[in-house]
Amino acid sequence: METRTATTKADFETAARLQVDFNTEYNYPVPPADELAGHLSRLVENGDTTVMLIGEPAVGHGITRFRVQTMADELEAYLAELYVVPDRRGQGLGTVLLQAIIDEAKARGATNMDLGTSEDDKSARALYEKFGFDNHEGRGSGPRSLFYEKEL
Amino acid sequence: METRTATTKADFETAARLQVDFNTEYNYPVPPADELAGHLSRLVENGDTTVMLIGEPAVGHGITRFRVQTMADELEAYLAELYVVPDRRGQGLGTVLLQAIIDEAKARGATNMDLGTSEDDKSARALYEKFGFDNHEGRGSGPRSLFYEKEL
Repeated sequence: METRTATTKADFETAARLQVDFNTEYNYPVPPADELAGHLSRLVENGDTTVMLIGEPAVGHGITRFRVQTMADELEAYLAELYVVPDRRGQGLGTVLLQAIIDEAKARGATNMDLGTSEDDKSARALYEKFGFDNHEGRGSGPRSLFYEKEL
Repeated sequence: METRTATTKADFETAARLQVDFNTEYNYPVPPADELAGHLSRLVENGDTTVMLIGEPAVGHGITRFRVQTMADELEAYLAELYVVPDRRGQGLGTVLLQAIIDEAKARGATNMDLGTSEDDKSARALYEKFGFDNHEGRGSGPRSLFYEKEL
């Protein structure tokens, strides 16, 4: 299955539509798809974001954010979103998509990637752990690392 | 206890020294303090970072990173670091420091703040939860949100 980074208006509209489906499925707030497409396009244009698509027509997407690390003059990547449409799950598309995202992040020079995911999302956690993502402080054997959030 | 944002070379040297103490205490990799001071100064100059200090001489610090949100044209804040020296803990300094960090983030226009912390760090978690930080997907009653990380 082919992957590609979103570059055209049609690509961003596709990614936005997939993201709206994602948010709807998980009961997150749903932005208007046309506004989100424009927003994603601007993020990519401004240089700190990659939007990856899989399939033609696309059946999954990922959004990665980049910035200089707090402790070192190297890039870190944050996997903000990863989604495969429900009827194509369990067919290895997440693996192909995440591999493409990691390859692209490494090509940009990122040396670290992090993400937050739900404790009860066993398939997502299995995917991340297969790629070596670790949920423990100090990696492997320490206490787990928890993700906290607050509206300001 | 007074708080202030780091602006001078001496401020960044102080913050770097505190950060080195932090990393040493928690067995994280320890960058050279002079390199870290320069790096933090550049991050602040480039506009996506705040370094907050508490006390004179400083006995704690926080580092906050900002970027445009993935889903909306608003800023999000990531609390990358928060530290109070061991012999001044339990005196409410973390509360004063975190309040100053949140106030400054709101003043910059951030509408969301997130962070990762260790499951076994009860005092840090109690502090964050006192301020309304939530570790659950969908807030309050959903499954917990876990923080995963991987070297690339």
